This record gives sequence, C-alpha cells and structure tokens, in this order.
Amino acid sequence: MLPTRIIERKRDGGRLSSDELEAFLRAYLQGDVAEYQMSAFLMAAFIRGLDPAELSVLLREIIDSGARLRFEDDGPPAVDKHSTGGVGDKVSLILAPLLAEAGLRVPMMSGRGLGHTGGTLDKLEAIPGFDVSVDLARFRVILDEVGCAMIGQTKEIAPLDGRLYALRDVTGTVPSPPLIAASIVSKKVAEGIEALVLDVKCGRGAFITDLEQARGLARTMVDLAVAEGVRTSALLTAMNAPLGRTVGNALEVREAIETLRGGGPADLREVTLALSAELLVSVGRAPGAEEAAAELGAILDGGAALERFVRLIEVQGGDPKVADDPGRLPTAPVRESFRAPGSGWLDVHARRVGVASVELGAGRRRVEDAVDPRVGFEFHRLAGDRVSEGEPLVTVHAADTASAATAAHRLANAIRVSPEPAAPQPLILERIA
Amino acid sequence: MLPTRIIERKRDGGRLSSDELEAFLRAYLQGDVAEYQMSAFLMAAFIRGLDPAELSVLLREIIDSGARLRFEDDGPPAVDKHSTGGVGDKVSLILAPLLAEAGLRVPMMSGRGLGHTGGTLDKLEAIPGFDVSVDLARFRVILDEVGCAMIGQTKEIAPLDGRLYALRDVTGTVPSPPLIAASIVSKKVAEGIEALVLDVKCGRGAFITDLEQARGLARTMVDLAVAEGVRTSALLTAMNAPLGRTVGNALEVREAIETLRGGGPADLREVTLALSAELLVSVGRAPGAEEAAAELGAILDGGAALERFVRLIEVQGGDPKVADDPGRLPTAPVRESFRAPGSGWLDVHARRVGVASVELGAGRRRVEDAVDPRVGFEFHRLAGDRVSEGEPLVTVHAADTASAATAAHRLANAIRVSPEPAAPQPLILERIA
Repeated sequence: MLPTRIIERKRDGGRLSSDELEAFLRAYLQGDVAEYQMSAFLMAAFIRGLDPAELSVLLREIIDSGARLRFEDDGPPAVDKHSTGGVGDKVSLILAPLLAEAGLRVPMMSGRGLGHTGGTLDKLEAIPGFDVSVDLARFRVILDEVGCAMIGQTKEIAPLDGRLYALRDVTGTVPSPPLIAASIVSKKVAEGIEALVLDVKCGRGAFITDLEQARGLARTMVDLAVAEGVRTSALLTAMNAPLGRTVGNALEVREAIETLRGGGPADLREVTLALSAELLVSVGRAPGAEEAAAELGAILDGGAALERFVRLIEVQGGDPKVADDPGRLPTAPVRESFRAPGSGWLDVHARRVGVASVELGAGRRRVEDAVDPRVGFEFHRLAGDRVSEGEPLVTVHAADTASAATAAHRLANAIRVSPEPAAPQPLILERIA
Repeated sequence: MLPTRIIERKRDGGRLSSDELEAFLRAYLQGDVAEYQMSAFLMAAFIRGLDPAELSVLLREIIDSGARLRFEDDGPPAVDKHSTGGVGDKVSLILAPLLAEAGLRVPMMSGRGLGHTGGTLDKLEAIPGFDVSVDLARFRVILDEVGCAMIGQTKEIAPLDGRLYALRDVTGTVPSPPLIAASIVSKKVAEGIEALVLDVKCGRGAFITDLEQARGLARTMVDLAVAEGVRTSALLTAMNAPLGRTVGNALEVREAIETLRGGGPADLREVTLALSAELLVSVGRAPGAEEAAAELGAILDGGAALERFVRLIEVQGGDPKVADDPGRLPTAPVRESFRAPGSGWLDVHARRVGVASVELGAGRRRVEDAVDPRVGFEFHRLAGDRVSEGEPLVTVHAADTASAATAAHRLANAIRVSPEPAAPQPLILERIA
C-alpha cells in the first residue's frame, strides 16, 4: 500500500477497493500515514466524494478503532438519538430520561457546542457538579442503575473519528456529507444500540439550509446505520427559529426540567415526543408513532421522567435539587430586557440568535474557550407570535452590561416584526427510514 | 487571515485575493499554517486549479522566500534553460558551456533524476570530484571565471518551493500544471536571468504525453516568466525514444563531451542547438534562430565549447582529464550485448528504457537511494534505424551479471523491431513564445 497512490486515486475521482482504503486507514492509525497525507486525502474525498462501499469501509474502520459496547440480549433495548445541531435544542436532556422511564436503555454520548449551535455536554455541565467525563465501565454502571447515562465522547470509543475530526476541523473538510455521516453513525453503532433516531435539522439556524441536502444526509446516515444492523429512522425538523424559549446552557436546563414536568413550550415538546416515539416504535414497544407519542406524553405529564432525570443528575455527581429549585442553577448577574421594535408578527432568525449567544459566552469562539453557563436569551414571545411595540420580547442574561448591550445589538439583527403573519410552517418536515 | 477559510474557498473552487493567498503562504513559512493545512490546500488547488492572478502571487512568494541573484547590467546577459525531464537528456551539459563560449552567462541550477528520467546533477557527479553543492557566493565566483556554473538547488534560493515540493511529493499533488509552473519558473527568475528557454518534453518518455497538455504547461510557464520580466520561449520537443545514444550518468557525460567536440548523435545536437539558439536570439545576440544555430554549431565544431566545459569541471573540483580520456569516468564491471530480436526497423520506448535504467541503478527508486554513475545503456542503433536480427543493438553497462540480465529482460520490453518503417517524426514539435 503506497499512501500517495491511494491519495492520487481519490484525487482523480477514482474508487478505492476495500482493501486499499482499509490499509490506508490502518496505516494512519499506526502512524505510517502522516497527518499531512490524511488531510490531502480528506480534501480529495471531500471534493470527489466517497461511494457507499468506501463509506462503509470508513465506518467500519472507525468503529473497529475502539471499543464497542454490547448489552445482554434480554435486557431493555438500547437506543439513542443524534441531532445535527440547532439553536435552543435541548431535546436530549428530555428524551434520555423519558425513554428510560418508558423502559428503554439510553447510552447517550453527546458533544459540545459547535459554531452557533449548542451542545448537550455544555448544557449538562450547567448543572453544578454534573460530570460528563465518565469512562465506559462507570457508564455501564450508571446505565444499569438509571436506564440512561449522558456522557461525552470517551477515548475508548472510535478514536479514529476523534483524530479525523480534529484534522478536518483545521483543514476545511468538515461539511462533507459522507464524512459527517461516517463520523456520526460510527459512534452511535459503537454504543451498542438497537435503534437510532436522527434529528436532521434543516433551515437557516441549522448547518444544512437546503431540504434536498438534508434528505441526502439523512438517507446516507440511515443506510449506513441500517447496514450495521441498527434500526434507524430520521426526522427532518425545521430549524429556522430557536427551539423552545431559551438559548444558553443553564436557561436550557431549566426549560428541559419544565418540559420533563409536563410543561414547557409546545414546539420543544412536539419535537421531543416525535423523536422519542420513533425509537419506541423501532424497538417494537408501540404499534405506531401516534400511540408512542401519546404514551410518552403521559409519562411527561405524570412527572416520572423528571424523577428519572433527577436520579441521573444525582448519579452523575450533579445537584439533584435543581429540579425543584432552578434558582440553584448558575444565574447571570445582569438581566436586560429586549423590547419589540414595532407591532406585528414576530420572526426570529435562529442562526443570528445562536451567533449572539456565542458572543455572550454561551458557546465557544475557539475550541479552548470556556463556556459561561449563566448567560443566554430567554424569549417571552416566540416566532409567529403577535407582539406590540415596546413589550419585552427577550430577557438577555449576561455576565456584564457591556456584553448585554452587544447582545441586544445583535438581537436587533436577529428579530423582525412584520406587519403580516408568515404562513405557519410545520416543525417536522419529513420522515426518512 | 483564517487558514481554514482560505482552504475552504479554494476547496469550493473560489478565487483567493492576492492579500489572502500572500498571507496564507507567509503564515506557512512562519509556521502558523501547519503542514496538514498546506497539504489540504494543495490538494484543493490541484483539483480546482489556480487562476493567473493566484499563480503570480504564488510565484512571487516563492521567489521572495529566498535570495535572488542580480547581475550588473553591463555584463554578459544571464540566461538559462529548463527541461521538464526526459530519458537520455544531457542537453544542459552541452548548452551551458556552449552559451558561455558564445558570450552569455549561464547560472544554471539543476535537479536530480525524477522517476524514470535523468537529472543533470546526477550526470555531473559522474565526473570524479565534480562538486554541485556550491553556495551562492562561490557560484558567483565560478560564473565570473567561467561564464557558466552548474550547481544544485541551494537552500538560499526559493526555500518555499523546496518545502512545498517535498510536501506535494508525499501527498499526491505533484502533477499539477500551475504548481509545476510556479515551481520551475520561480527558481529560474531567482537566478537573475534575462532570458529563459523551456524544453517541454512531450511523448511516451516524458511526464506529459499529450501535446495539448504540453502546450498548456508551456503557455503557463512562458506567461509567468514573461510577467516577471524574463524573455522566455518554449520548445515542445519529442520524447518518445531516448535522446542520443546513451542513458546512464557516466555514459551520458561521455556523449556530451563528444557532442561538445562537434560530434555526437544528430538528435542531441539538433535539440541542443535549437534551445541554445532561442536564448541567443532572446538576448539580441543573433538576428534569428537559424543564424544563431549556425553560429553555435560552428563553436561546437571548433572545440571551444569543450574547452569551456573542461574549465568548468576544473573549477568545480572535477577531473578535467575526462574530456581527453573518457576512460577516467567510472566504468561498469559488467558489459553485455543486447541483440536485435528480429530484422526490420527499430523502435525504442523511452519510458521503459528509463525505468530499466533506474532498475540498473542509474536512477533512484527512493529519494534516499544512491545512484550508480557507472551503469546504463549504450545504444548502437537508434529508433528508426534498420537493424538485422542478432546484431548488437545495445551494450548494457551493469554492476553485476544479475542486474545486467534483469536489464536485458526489461530492454526486450522497451525495444520493438517492426517489418515496416514508422513515419519519421519531427524532434522539435512546436515553439511557444
């Protein structure tokens, strides 16, 4: 295997045999292919693409580079969800305890905020004491105890993905559908799950704005995961305005708790139930999505899902009292009202809100930045609502008045009040399975 | 300047502004752009191309990364030749002293053999004692003394090119016309020359087999060099059979000496005179190519060019007696005859001969390999000649009988005897200026 030959073949748009690609990836893991060779290959693969056979070799090598969880066959079916990333997307915090309460097992490994989007780990860490850096052995114990566990990527799972992602991040090769698909699906397959649901966000607040592209990515991921024996479906969901009322880590935990208690905003509850229902149906625990959503909605309303979340917080080292006393979550010293610039119907631009939240400190401008769990936006009105000039639309939670002022300035660009209502748009755009 | 933004732009086929590309290349030189980022960029540039404005920025940055020779205005005009590489191409060894004898100055920096093609430095080093590792200060002294100097790439000239080339070599991004053009032209411009002639080899023994591609590369290089103020023309020359009678370093030195004495094979003399004449005309020392070639031919026939070469050898530490006594050149211990496999017209496949010569040890399989100056092929008949079955066609000069046998086996694949003569083809295909 000559690395340059492999790179040249992909450069010229050729297909690599399974043996060649496998040898190339293994040589990289062993240090016999240099980072600069892999980055040239990734750029060629980005531009020329990877066909299904190549993609399945990549997937398999990523999985095989690390550990793979296996659960006993007679236990609760293990399931998970992945979202491609949005603004205000706190679905995971609700879905994991909800499905555990419904009798499934949810070994969830999540990520951090990326660009203008939030990340589940950052949100969880807003809970004082909550530890997401848990090794696989402890992860298993938590899962057995609570039925769900929520941790970060461990070094034991798919280390090849970690290396490739770090390289792609600095070489302009992240947004490649096949590379994204292999990265996402490999880690989920390694979790040992039986069923997977993908939340492919589409819209101006998502990484994918084009419906056709979202469909393509969903199709690729579903096919890859199904080929690995994981029952998988995808929902394409709208990400034009933030999901729910809050953007920012502690604020989002608070909203997730409300939703776990049966309250919370309608859009957040709808998306959470739809995704959770997919999994309940996939593992054969409900005859159809409608029945599954009804069952799960009843669990939320009964409060048992919140109790499950409280147990999870406790087991993972966090302060379980936040559920009853959200004031125990970190709060920002400065709160300022952002008021409606006019009267009419409200439109909120999710990406701009996300970017503003990053500038407030809720996300990272650089990988090494720390996140401020306290800051963010709390919307009193949602996109589509009728608003009156001067009424408070958003509370800005900020570390200081200067950043609050900057955020208000940014918000002014993210918010429009129109004289006419926009045509209502569905939240769940399509299902792909 | 964000390196990933630059890479992404090129990845998506966009144009980089001069400021952006300049900043990116300078950051690379300073270590602020990593090798893996540059290799991703080079792959994107390979696939998407570089437009003339981008190319001229790349050229300028390569030149400005190192020293640039400057000659006094009233001295002999400085000129040089570059060949894209062929088999049996010993033109430089003749052209440099010939033009020095004609009153020009030839500050020639050459390369080593690449793939199946030979390199001027390897040939010169077949002369016992000849030193091609000379720094710029000494280079100037030799030039003043002899009128020509022949050395290897120094670290002082275009160090950015050296780094980029080393990276391209291991990342499958060598054969890109714009990257090749910038690499070649930058080093020639840095030599401080007034006029340049390019020998763009085309045919089955060249790196470029397609005439249209050869034209494109010639056009790109001529335009680049002219934009830098260097009067430049290119000859597209046929490289289907080896040039001259010999392939292998000491053997080629011997043949160059014969040609400098006014002898040598007709094809070698024709190409050498045509290229040399281009330069004589470019600097205004001859009214036209025909007159220039006649003048230069007379110099060869008079023996003064050989005397000039002898002086150069002496000044660069080599054994000047090789000119009169070629037996002082290293000779191979084993010589075997390769005989005509049939009667008819001879055809010789240059690339296959080149590959066979590398296997004999005349070139390198790996960069770190040493070259054996003694070995090679000496053709007694040339492509197009009528031959009789059993007559000696080639003497194989080898280090041992085993490698001689392997080489003979390879030669059998490189040589065809056809019942019909092939249509004669011109040696000089086109001129581009």
